[in-house]
Amino acid sequence: MTIKVLGYGATQVKANLAPLHFERREVRADDVEIEILYCGVCHSDLHQVENDWGMSHYPLVPGHEIVGKVVKVGDKVTKFKVGDIAGVGCIVDSCRHCSPCEHGLEQYCEAGFIETYNGIDPHDNMPTYGGYSERIIVSERFALKIPKGIPLEAAAPLLCAGITTWSPLKHWQVGKNTRVAVVGLGGLGHMAIKLAKGLGAEVTLFTRSKNKSSDAIRLGADHIVLSTDEAQMQAVKGKFDVIIDTVPNVHDINPYLATLSLNGTIVLVGYLGPLEPFVHSFDLISGRKTVAGSMIGGIPETQEMLDFCAEHGISSDVEVINIQYINQAFARMKKSDVKYRFVIDMQSLKQDK
Amino acid sequence: MTIKVLGYGATQVKANLAPLHFERREVRADDVEIEILYCGVCHSDLHQVENDWGMSHYPLVPGHEIVGKVVKVGDKVTKFKVGDIAGVGCIVDSCRHCSPCEHGLEQYCEAGFIETYNGIDPHDNMPTYGGYSERIIVSERFALKIPKGIPLEAAAPLLCAGITTWSPLKHWQVGKNTRVAVVGLGGLGHMAIKLAKGLGAEVTLFTRSKNKSSDAIRLGADHIVLSTDEAQMQAVKGKFDVIIDTVPNVHDINPYLATLSLNGTIVLVGYLGPLEPFVHSFDLISGRKTVAGSMIGGIPETQEMLDFCAEHGISSDVEVINIQYINQAFARMKKSDVKYRFVIDMQSLKQDK
Repeated sequence: MTIKVLGYGATQVKANLAPLHFERREVRADDVEIEILYCGVCHSDLHQVENDWGMSHYPLVPGHEIVGKVVKVGDKVTKFKVGDIAGVGCIVDSCRHCSPCEHGLEQYCEAGFIETYNGIDPHDNMPTYGGYSERIIVSERFALKIPKGIPLEAAAPLLCAGITTWSPLKHWQVGKNTRVAVVGLGGLGHMAIKLAKGLGAEVTLFTRSKNKSSDAIRLGADHIVLSTDEAQMQAVKGKFDVIIDTVPNVHDINPYLATLSLNGTIVLVGYLGPLEPFVHSFDLISGRKTVAGSMIGGIPETQEMLDFCAEHGISSDVEVINIQYINQAFARMKKSDVKYRFVIDMQSLKQDK
Repeated sequence: MTIKVLGYGATQVKANLAPLHFERREVRADDVEIEILYCGVCHSDLHQVENDWGMSHYPLVPGHEIVGKVVKVGDKVTKFKVGDIAGVGCIVDSCRHCSPCEHGLEQYCEAGFIETYNGIDPHDNMPTYGGYSERIIVSERFALKIPKGIPLEAAAPLLCAGITTWSPLKHWQVGKNTRVAVVGLGGLGHMAIKLAKGLGAEVTLFTRSKNKSSDAIRLGADHIVLSTDEAQMQAVKGKFDVIIDTVPNVHDINPYLATLSLNGTIVLVGYLGPLEPFVHSFDLISGRKTVAGSMIGGIPETQEMLDFCAEHGISSDVEVINIQYINQAFARMKKSDVKYRFVIDMQSLKQDK
């Protein structure tokens, strides 16, 4: 049994997003049905629409920063009731029983986690479609509770940009007395600053653009380092315990390695591809430093992050748009012209009914 | 005040090693003077003689795997008495007061540690000369006690090859239930196998050469993986918690990244240079893996390793040579024709008196 849903999607590679109808499953015993109120626009939505990673299937309905209202629950659902505010991030299912899944690290599920869109549901083999749509149906295990106190539109980006930076900050034990640097000030970078600051760290932003300084300070950064300025880079040599590198494109990480302290770690969260130019082993060996990667975050730590944000008054800086504006938003995102996340007000979809 | 010492050294880049006399300081209050009995031949001795790292000064007397007998002690020495068996590794001094030094991590001294040879003593500005010589004078803080039970010639390589592999094994918490792989079976690799096995790990050797299998098993490896065999590599995908990569030349680490488990770490200990071909971020991100480096080890952990080796009957497999054979030994080392460490019997130096 399926239901018809209206959304915005691409019917072929690089096509403009346009209204389209598609099918979702009816709620199963452990499912909740969520009427989507807001959906964040992640850089990977653009990558997927343009098939940059070579694994897109069409029609493709993007969106994995979803906040909405529970309108229906399956018989066995205990975590949610109708009327609750719920969120859905990048993960809508996984094998649920491998070691990573049992440890709440569904993003590293040995069978591969099921993506919120462009995936295949393992139970009914139906394609998954994302949050640029009226409603979504998901197992309660993969739905998050959105705590009171976070404006809903500003909560949506926490489901991807938030957890993607939170997970490495926690894994590499950032807290008071930690010196953290963030590379890049976009959707992920602005969350990394806020979350690291919330955790009590001393936070530095690496940026190539002087203009970003005042904004970075407003977001909570203690220091700004212009990465194009040799003297500024030299001044922070050996300083940072953890660097969260959010840059989504190929870039030289060697200059950042030099700014890590003994035992320091640079964590790549934004870029999938070959590390060009060559990473030099000198800094790794002479300072027991590490280059690491981290992918999104598991469901329990996503809930932990949401609760932390509510407690600390942290949310995303967003520009709310109508769904009809999505193609312009994509174009602006390509130019990094957004502070710091577009979020679609899904009520606007009614205009296309 | 100085003393004259006979050793074997290179007077210019790539020169054959030949007998030469040089000066060492007299013992200072905290120094011990050691009559050298054995000195291991490390691959970096060859690198330094040939100025491969562009920082060699001549004349250069190599050798930093030194075992000998204490023949004189300074007024303030408490750790050694005349007649004790002592060792000297790669480090003969450091600032002694920075944070790494205070934590026994002299190899990461913020001022730079003083190398056993090709360095400059910070107190008298005299060049340092290594263990291919009759005697050495060193602060007791940087001398090791060689515990009873290890044959002295087989103890010498522990001071570099041993500690260089021990330090990362301990830092990355290898023990029972850890799955360790070792890349390369040379001086470092054979120690990595023995030490990881001694710590209780399940140990696999990656090698390109089938011939090494029986030897690796004899040294303690549980499994051998032929890294040139695609099927064998595939079979160990996602398996290892820690990989100790001892290869001293540029090589592709991407195939090894694929064999790391979730949260796994590959530690480079043998190769200083650019990581070619490009390291791909896919494995790092999709498995929260890390690429790390590690350099030698600090003095307290070197002592810990020596004591561990004595307790567990671990030492290096050596081929004892006379100093007059050193140039042939270098030539054979270039062809990896040694199992697994040349060690010079320094009594042979008397023939050049």
